[in-house]
Amino acid sequence: MSRVGVIGIGHGVFGRRSDATVQELAFEAFRDAMTDAGIERGELDASVIAAVPEYHKQRSVAGVVQEYLNLNPLPTWLTEVACASGSAAIRTAYMAIKSGLHRVVAVIGCQKMTELGTAEILALMGRVGEVQWESVFGTTFPGYYAMFATRHMHEFGTTREQLLEVAVKNHHYGAMNPNALFQKEITIEKALASDPVASPFCVYDCCANADGAACLILADESRVSGRDGKVVWLDGVGSATSPMSVLRRPNLVGLPSASEAARQAYEMAGVTARDVKVAEVHDCFTIAELMAYEDLGFCEKGHGGRFIGERRSYIGGDVAVNVDGGLKAKGHPIGATGVSMACEIVGQLRGECGERQVPDADVGLTHNVGGIGQYTFVHVFRRD
Amino acid sequence: MSRVGVIGIGHGVFGRRSDATVQELAFEAFRDAMTDAGIERGELDASVIAAVPEYHKQRSVAGVVQEYLNLNPLPTWLTEVACASGSAAIRTAYMAIKSGLHRVVAVIGCQKMTELGTAEILALMGRVGEVQWESVFGTTFPGYYAMFATRHMHEFGTTREQLLEVAVKNHHYGAMNPNALFQKEITIEKALASDPVASPFCVYDCCANADGAACLILADESRVSGRDGKVVWLDGVGSATSPMSVLRRPNLVGLPSASEAARQAYEMAGVTARDVKVAEVHDCFTIAELMAYEDLGFCEKGHGGRFIGERRSYIGGDVAVNVDGGLKAKGHPIGATGVSMACEIVGQLRGECGERQVPDADVGLTHNVGGIGQYTFVHVFRRD
Repeated sequence: MSRVGVIGIGHGVFGRRSDATVQELAFEAFRDAMTDAGIERGELDASVIAAVPEYHKQRSVAGVVQEYLNLNPLPTWLTEVACASGSAAIRTAYMAIKSGLHRVVAVIGCQKMTELGTAEILALMGRVGEVQWESVFGTTFPGYYAMFATRHMHEFGTTREQLLEVAVKNHHYGAMNPNALFQKEITIEKALASDPVASPFCVYDCCANADGAACLILADESRVSGRDGKVVWLDGVGSATSPMSVLRRPNLVGLPSASEAARQAYEMAGVTARDVKVAEVHDCFTIAELMAYEDLGFCEKGHGGRFIGERRSYIGGDVAVNVDGGLKAKGHPIGATGVSMACEIVGQLRGECGERQVPDADVGLTHNVGGIGQYTFVHVFRRD
Repeated sequence: MSRVGVIGIGHGVFGRRSDATVQELAFEAFRDAMTDAGIERGELDASVIAAVPEYHKQRSVAGVVQEYLNLNPLPTWLTEVACASGSAAIRTAYMAIKSGLHRVVAVIGCQKMTELGTAEILALMGRVGEVQWESVFGTTFPGYYAMFATRHMHEFGTTREQLLEVAVKNHHYGAMNPNALFQKEITIEKALASDPVASPFCVYDCCANADGAACLILADESRVSGRDGKVVWLDGVGSATSPMSVLRRPNLVGLPSASEAARQAYEMAGVTARDVKVAEVHDCFTIAELMAYEDLGFCEKGHGGRFIGERRSYIGGDVAVNVDGGLKAKGHPIGATGVSMACEIVGQLRGECGERQVPDADVGLTHNVGGIGQYTFVHVFRRD
């Protein structure tokens, strides 16, 4: 069967975007992706929208975006799997193309996070945990991941400093990304001294909500001729689930959905963890990035703290991770994040990332987690 | 390429289901569909969930359903396009199978509508219209469709009686459906005398919110051997969009998304409107069913009122429409509706519908509208 290629990427500025509605954010990213692809609307067959609608005043997000982008009467659909919605959209677009139903599909992740107050958002996010037996007792998102961190520290001796080294790295690279929410370096001392959130986390362990949008144009192999230098192939799409209730998980130091999704994606693409030069992983909290190193096979289980301590996830290390700033510094517009990750990997594989460019990047990966790990999507991208 | 077949259907009771959470509703339908298909969980490759999460206390609906159905670590994703979410889920499952990524996929539409109060639901539903320029001025769902009805009456002389004949028919058949919310006949006099909602609509012009779930098991042609008598093929999947803002529509007497989706589905399946023996159409309001007759080509534009008046959409007429009671009498759990429609058509094509069975049903269709027509999905099913 023929391959699916990425022929265009577009990415807006992440942050408190009180200047733009969700459809305006979507338009910014879409316009740039279409320009990048060098195609007209008439060449598109469908769009897929990723968003978590409940944070918006405007519901039926796919419909309002489709109209604002002047894409009627093309088909559209929205995918929602919490913070992994963007990757689920990419996966369904991949299926749409491989099925022969469509040839060129726009994937648009777009999210407003600042229309609601912080307390309201935190309460809504708690409902992305298991409501009947868990979040009803007060577990919040930081609380869930704080449990993972506590257990990781207990079992493997992971330290507070190692956790916060993730934030230091991601702010370091975020400072080089003009689309990032936080474009400034931080020190480990400053991070350690920040306000507590949920023990052991302080403010700098946590990513920040942001408004934002990103767009990918995917196309069937037959539609990518003449773009040889610029096409990046989506060669592996892995997806798996874990029980939503953490009380039904085998342990709290990794995400079973992530290791299984990675296994699938590596196998489909015919690569191993060692082949990956650049990765975008889901660092919603510092511990999440350490667990990702382990679940993706970049290091052994329990060695995540040492991996960042030895700077092996910096450019020049084993694999460059979150060199766009990650969720931590770039910001996390939950419906857009998976698409944003893919944009960065495509940019890296095309060698267009300027001062944060990873040398010789030929294989890249995205690792996008929904909720507290009930969903993980791992996608492997490659240039020829 | 090989065909996609429906090998199992399951359908719960629609109504005020205070006895069940959303995952319990999903389980009822899933269990029945798996029994019907005669397969075990180990033979499934993935699930697709359809729901509109914002009406639930529990968010991340796909995750909680996946766990409750014991389907971890299989992939899952949720599709949301308002009231057409169920059909979008079927469409993405179809793509998953045709793409070669998965071979057997469960599609589960599940929705709680009674966790919120009526006023809160009405306000949320208004946000499925265009918020910036329309619903902010007070348009509600009944209000939008009332405009369509008013214009249809003005242009084509459609009468109040013709509109309410739709409700009379759908209650007539709903009385034969043990899963329907309202299992009782009504008279045109009773309908005309019911309380006003939004002029010209009264209560009996409007469908009712309900909790409920339905499930389809779809499989690749290679996985359906030995089921020859029981397999129903999904041969046409049409999908199109209209501007969400009614002020950008060419007219108010039909849905451009519906006629375009029908055109695609007929072409894919190699059938015409005349071949369709049984149809499930989106009768969220009485006018919607009349517009569906016209948009699907069952009659000419403007003749919908006459079509129902002459009982041509009853069993024994040109095409039997909504013989499970439709949204009107069966109830409308918005995420489940598209899947429920497909269950009825599959049951009809298998000849299993008892007193509401349509004779010689070999080609059936579902017409599922999202919002106020910004999305329509038309699916054509056939038995060999």
